[in-house]
Amino acid sequence: MAHLDRRTLLSGLAAASVLPFGSKARGADAGPAKDITKTLARYIVTATYAQLPEGVRKEGVRTLLNWVGVAVGGSHHAAVETAVAALGPFSGPAQASLLGRRERYDIMTAAFLNGVAGHVLDYDDTHPRTIVHPSTVVAPAVLALAEMTPVDGKTFLNALVLGVETACRMGNAVSPEHYDAGWHITGTAGVFGAAAAAGKLLNLNEQQMTWALGLAASQPVGLRESFGSMNKAFNPGRAAANGLFAALLAAKNFQSSDGMIEATRGWANTISTRHDYTEITGELGQRFEAAKNTYKPFPCGIVMHPAIDGAIRLARENKIDPGAIERIDLKVHPLVLELTGKKTPATGLESKFSIYHAVAVALIEGAGGQKQFSDRAARAPAVVALRGKVVPAVDTAIKQDQADITVVFKDGRKLHRFIEHAVGSLEVPMTDADMDLKVLDLADGILPKDHAARVIDRCRKVETLANAADIAAACRL
Amino acid sequence: MAHLDRRTLLSGLAAASVLPFGSKARGADAGPAKDITKTLARYIVTATYAQLPEGVRKEGVRTLLNWVGVAVGGSHHAAVETAVAALGPFSGPAQASLLGRRERYDIMTAAFLNGVAGHVLDYDDTHPRTIVHPSTVVAPAVLALAEMTPVDGKTFLNALVLGVETACRMGNAVSPEHYDAGWHITGTAGVFGAAAAAGKLLNLNEQQMTWALGLAASQPVGLRESFGSMNKAFNPGRAAANGLFAALLAAKNFQSSDGMIEATRGWANTISTRHDYTEITGELGQRFEAAKNTYKPFPCGIVMHPAIDGAIRLARENKIDPGAIERIDLKVHPLVLELTGKKTPATGLESKFSIYHAVAVALIEGAGGQKQFSDRAARAPAVVALRGKVVPAVDTAIKQDQADITVVFKDGRKLHRFIEHAVGSLEVPMTDADMDLKVLDLADGILPKDHAARVIDRCRKVETLANAADIAAACRL
Repeated sequence: MAHLDRRTLLSGLAAASVLPFGSKARGADAGPAKDITKTLARYIVTATYAQLPEGVRKEGVRTLLNWVGVAVGGSHHAAVETAVAALGPFSGPAQASLLGRRERYDIMTAAFLNGVAGHVLDYDDTHPRTIVHPSTVVAPAVLALAEMTPVDGKTFLNALVLGVETACRMGNAVSPEHYDAGWHITGTAGVFGAAAAAGKLLNLNEQQMTWALGLAASQPVGLRESFGSMNKAFNPGRAAANGLFAALLAAKNFQSSDGMIEATRGWANTISTRHDYTEITGELGQRFEAAKNTYKPFPCGIVMHPAIDGAIRLARENKIDPGAIERIDLKVHPLVLELTGKKTPATGLESKFSIYHAVAVALIEGAGGQKQFSDRAARAPAVVALRGKVVPAVDTAIKQDQADITVVFKDGRKLHRFIEHAVGSLEVPMTDADMDLKVLDLADGILPKDHAARVIDRCRKVETLANAADIAAACRL
Repeated sequence: MAHLDRRTLLSGLAAASVLPFGSKARGADAGPAKDITKTLARYIVTATYAQLPEGVRKEGVRTLLNWVGVAVGGSHHAAVETAVAALGPFSGPAQASLLGRRERYDIMTAAFLNGVAGHVLDYDDTHPRTIVHPSTVVAPAVLALAEMTPVDGKTFLNALVLGVETACRMGNAVSPEHYDAGWHITGTAGVFGAAAAAGKLLNLNEQQMTWALGLAASQPVGLRESFGSMNKAFNPGRAAANGLFAALLAAKNFQSSDGMIEATRGWANTISTRHDYTEITGELGQRFEAAKNTYKPFPCGIVMHPAIDGAIRLARENKIDPGAIERIDLKVHPLVLELTGKKTPATGLESKFSIYHAVAVALIEGAGGQKQFSDRAARAPAVVALRGKVVPAVDTAIKQDQADITVVFKDGRKLHRFIEHAVGSLEVPMTDADMDLKVLDLADGILPKDHAARVIDRCRKVETLANAADIAAACRL
């Protein structure tokens, strides 16, 4: 046993919780990093709907609607179909719905699958500072729970907002180092949000919520290497299920340490080279990260969004004959050509990485939705003809959310538009009307038209619902 | 959107798997770190029972038996009772047993609960170099699966050994930095073992096994801050369920990246400051970490094991009247007093951290099992009297797996014993007979006596079983 070192010995001794290296000793050692987990837990447990500022509630409603739309839209993606086939035989009772589908599963299986569906199109919300996609981890957990245990819309929205708030704050605390290292922050910070929101609906007390956050800390999900595979959407789905799992165990008093976020060998120290706990516990109830959520207007790489925005505006404000166009001059940020320089995309998927396609289709169709990045659009003769006339030029004076577009006609006429901030940014948020159109577009072909309208209506009126599960009911087939 | 940086932009673009930063590009960039995940997957997929050396098979059988014993022994611990109460309502079909209990749950719920039960006593196996406790992550996954889909004992044992091998190799690759940082390596390396073993029983092909390992890499479980709470045993349980989850999804072709272990933003780089891939892919099928597994003879901190070993030997080899003892002189490693210096333990739990109690009870009862660390033993008058006569002295010449014990009688007589390597170490492994006694001790009061004997018999004869599920059947009530 000479090869056993101190670590080994300590490990064997950690068995019985009487040694002085549990959370209390740690908290005392760690100086200022004291009671972070408990403080966060106390806030989540005590925060009420009535305390949410109007703007935060409004953004919460938009977060909900946008998520429901993308989860319905992604509900028949191959990743979801595959996961349903794999997991159906192991599901528990039919407690919760899969949005956009007929199956009903136990709440953790449903949360996983709805979480995958909500992220698989890469069309969900983004907390810009951290790149956390909060809703697709938090919303599946809390909606599934609401289907099992009836809860009114105000209570539901409060839990959702608190979950989003928790996920974004946890992300802030370790950004950007944690994401830079390779973690898919949506799953590693998001799991706290799912646990918080689920725990809120389960009416956990402060101690139980502390344990739920500790069990969430034990289950980070996702590495960036998975990007580009189904595994990317797996991450928020599994984080949603993990958060729910944590909250359900804590509700029965399954114990964790009280300092899992801040302890020497807790989450922040282990998972990031730097952390700032004031991001977690500072100004709780005053500063709302949940109000800083943004929504993608176009289902493609965000670098192209300014140019698409400009092309759509030109198309909507002018009657343009594509055949009359000589050339389209673009000034773009260097990353646009580096990342979306595909000149002749053959499929809808490839078209998401072609600035040539994106600008052409947006000019012709005056839109940039799912239909504009379909196989149909990628192969449409008019689009194919026009994309060859798009002439993008890198201009280092152009910022990442800017684009300069000039349509030059054969007769010498010109149309020009400069986009200062692309639609969907914090500065120019997506309008409610555009979000409705996005959701209708996503639900098209999946839900009957009147169902989609009902989904939008119920989400927008969530605060008046006697039963928040009505939202899920409107989304299932 | 000026605040969005390159990370944000890349994130949005990772959507559709056509960008050149998936696993292939990574593998090419990463030079020598090439095809680690695939190489490991190929080995797991192709390795057969017949290729296992005799010694490895034998250790596999011991690993199985020891795990079954501790899982039965822990099956009614408060952590398990709590988790059963929390999760029962969400379980799927009755596919797999809880060892030592009546409930039957879906395989992932059962794997979680059996994994918690197997670790909660801190009495399970240890791979000394890494402190990975491999069996309580791997065995629950593979036994649950065997209950659902019949498999013969040889196939079962092969899967178990390959899972243990995978868990230990993954641990080797990032030890000791990864554990030092704060990760509970049993859950973070172990999850690969569960995925590997489950995937083997599911007959995954190489590509599917690569994906299963990738999905496992996405789900590390456990932080050391949880030590001392139920959360510690949660970690291997959740890792067992996560590995199973990964394998079941991969079996239906749910995709991951092909380089999740070795890619720039894959598991090893993200989760550890250092790694050595030769530990993962070197000498596969030649060097077996699974043969280097060890088993605790005593359910307490491993630093006390040499002294307990010495006391038991003295008791068994001599007829000792405790009342005739004047004093017991101990020379011990410094960590013994630092970690187990409790002089007057009031409960069985506290007695696990008292070198005074441990030596006294071992001398009187000639044993160091569950019964010797019970409330009864901690309060037994003879033990309480004798523990006051134990005089431990730190001796820096004594190594961690050594102890020097001298019993001084009132009549001047002395008995002396020096332990060079404590029983349970790699150098002095637990005997088969002692392991049988350990399992009987653990099962006492949980399984009827004849059932416990049957459990031992079936584990020892696992290679002859037509149906490996017979082991689970023998363990349930």
